[in-house]
Amino acid sequence: MNKPKGFLFNGVASGIKKSGRKDLALIFSEKPAVAAAVFTKNIVKGAPIIIGKKRIRKGLCQSLLINSGVANTYTGEEGIRHAEETTKYLAKQIGIKEDLIIPSSTGIIGGTLPVDKIKRAIPKLVAGLSSNKIEDVARAIMTTDRFPKVSQKTLTLGGKRGTITAIAKGAGMIAPNMATMLCFVLTDFQIEGTFLKNSLREVVNSTFNRIIVDGDTSTNDSVFILANGFAGNRPLDTNNKESKKFTKALNEVCDEVAYMMVKDGEGATKVVKILVEEASSEKEAEKVARTVGTSILVKTAFFGEDPNWGRLVAAAGRAGVKFNPKSLEIYFDRIKVVSNGIQYTKESKYAHIMKKPHFTITLNLNKGTSSFYVLTSDLTFDYVKLNSHYRT
Amino acid sequence: MNKPKGFLFNGVASGIKKSGRKDLALIFSEKPAVAAAVFTKNIVKGAPIIIGKKRIRKGLCQSLLINSGVANTYTGEEGIRHAEETTKYLAKQIGIKEDLIIPSSTGIIGGTLPVDKIKRAIPKLVAGLSSNKIEDVARAIMTTDRFPKVSQKTLTLGGKRGTITAIAKGAGMIAPNMATMLCFVLTDFQIEGTFLKNSLREVVNSTFNRIIVDGDTSTNDSVFILANGFAGNRPLDTNNKESKKFTKALNEVCDEVAYMMVKDGEGATKVVKILVEEASSEKEAEKVARTVGTSILVKTAFFGEDPNWGRLVAAAGRAGVKFNPKSLEIYFDRIKVVSNGIQYTKESKYAHIMKKPHFTITLNLNKGTSSFYVLTSDLTFDYVKLNSHYRT
Repeated sequence: MNKPKGFLFNGVASGIKKSGRKDLALIFSEKPAVAAAVFTKNIVKGAPIIIGKKRIRKGLCQSLLINSGVANTYTGEEGIRHAEETTKYLAKQIGIKEDLIIPSSTGIIGGTLPVDKIKRAIPKLVAGLSSNKIEDVARAIMTTDRFPKVSQKTLTLGGKRGTITAIAKGAGMIAPNMATMLCFVLTDFQIEGTFLKNSLREVVNSTFNRIIVDGDTSTNDSVFILANGFAGNRPLDTNNKESKKFTKALNEVCDEVAYMMVKDGEGATKVVKILVEEASSEKEAEKVARTVGTSILVKTAFFGEDPNWGRLVAAAGRAGVKFNPKSLEIYFDRIKVVSNGIQYTKESKYAHIMKKPHFTITLNLNKGTSSFYVLTSDLTFDYVKLNSHYRT
Repeated sequence: MNKPKGFLFNGVASGIKKSGRKDLALIFSEKPAVAAAVFTKNIVKGAPIIIGKKRIRKGLCQSLLINSGVANTYTGEEGIRHAEETTKYLAKQIGIKEDLIIPSSTGIIGGTLPVDKIKRAIPKLVAGLSSNKIEDVARAIMTTDRFPKVSQKTLTLGGKRGTITAIAKGAGMIAPNMATMLCFVLTDFQIEGTFLKNSLREVVNSTFNRIIVDGDTSTNDSVFILANGFAGNRPLDTNNKESKKFTKALNEVCDEVAYMMVKDGEGATKVVKILVEEASSEKEAEKVARTVGTSILVKTAFFGEDPNWGRLVAAAGRAGVKFNPKSLEIYFDRIKVVSNGIQYTKESKYAHIMKKPHFTITLNLNKGTSSFYVLTSDLTFDYVKLNSHYRT
């Protein structure tokens, strides 16, 4: 497997997780990398988010220290001090400036960061750094995730081969307790800072911002990108012809891990694309797609493999978007199911689509030319089990 | 039990429900009653809603014909004709004008109204009318409801004794498939039309509009009130001193059946009041209360009796309302759990509250003087079971 040059990885068990599984990860670039990040929009923000926002401002980052098990959120000034203590300790051990290290946490809100355990594990974490341990990082950042999430793409830009690697976790659209989504994208391409930031923002909007498991937004969601330039290409910026190719590849890599998150959605058995077409504006299409994709009645119908288009119609009708119910057309994959205000096709002709692990529901509003889609999962017994009994 | 004078009731099995249970109800006033109604805000509306909106406009109604099992929604022009055919037939049988009869339906969207079955059952339905069959109506309008819902209050206004009776169904906040909420309020007080309409609107806002089971809004939700004047009081209107007492009693009766709907919420085991206090405006308080009360992570935590205040904080933080996370105080019943950005009380001191069948969560934003509450239920295995496998 190709890897982005100049990056080292490690993941260890520091004792935060009672299960004894890996819970502490380190990503290290051999030189400071041009960096950008997108953080949660929740007004309640974890301590690492507050620190990360400050440190990323200068556009450089060399190392990410990530723990799972505790979110270090709603922990007051003490939470900030705790996170700073761990990055300060790591800075000394690894011999770089503290403000080039960004902390990241995912886990239960309200719990205190076990600073001593983390500090005790840091020497081992640093000593074991290797270019081959991407999966160790992917495992150490898992919480309710059933599988590690890595996506990678190698391409040539400006005559130089380089790689974009995304390491992610998330098994709920960003559920506040144990399913924060985190994504760390690493690339050895050389990229100009402002372009990198804009490119990341654009890609986050068309990938991570379109996935729905439960509609909650975590206090700790973060997506980081580090570009260390080891590929040796001329810096990519807005004016560079190759830049679009970079953004496209970044989108592919992020799209792949975003899809993995929905597939791994807590208790999920299906991934369903909700596509709204021919709306008057993208905003309108988005409103309908999000309302349908978040409706727990729609999501339980998916679980029951019930071809119940009535729930789709009812959810669309309460989305706050005006449309003529008679003009609404609904498709299950390519089969037209509803048209002209009534059922268009016999249920026996489209019921089988609901049994597929992945399918597309299209709602055509017949109003305009804009469209939007989201990816959603089904709501299952296991979702309720995971989320009602997780802590107890 | 006191009853509103001049009203007759019946509920029979017409064969719409395959189970053979009652599925057709009739409410009849011995003279045309002053009437008002509030209908669903969903832009997709069932055929009976379209007819009901037209007929209620003149402010008079003498009879309600209600079926369960089929919603008669998304059935096109045919659905309108079907509903009209049943009220036309009833009008002849019962000897009143057709436009004094309002149809109402609850059940699966997309199914055709079985007009023949309904017409065949109407003679029996009319012949069996009695002042004693309120519960028969309550049973005939049930879908996924586990128990019939009736609330009643007798009081003296203007020197005359009268009764307000509410007969309701609903076991989901208004879920589009099988849990539409319907409520029929009957009173023998004499009430002026405009006052009746305003009073109903006010009461609906502070009762039915505050309950949440799954956050979906049905295409068929309706609340009707009929006041036939048999109590013989001078008409109550805005200028009448007794009118406030009437609205208060109406609120009590509606509040009681609204509470029953949450208690009977599909699969629910708990009723939780989410109270937001000291917000800058009622609108702000409402936004936070609805976001917290609709969060499926919060609702699954209630089911698991998990005193997980982190989920409350995270849901409040994504409600779209600005507040200082450090000023937020959270109470479980009267115990302060979160204050000044951190946990305030040991979990062992408040965990027992989550085990109660009814409790209150208060979120104090410490910003202003406005408040709002909603009633919500927990999200359980049985909810998923009911809604994933209902039709199949």
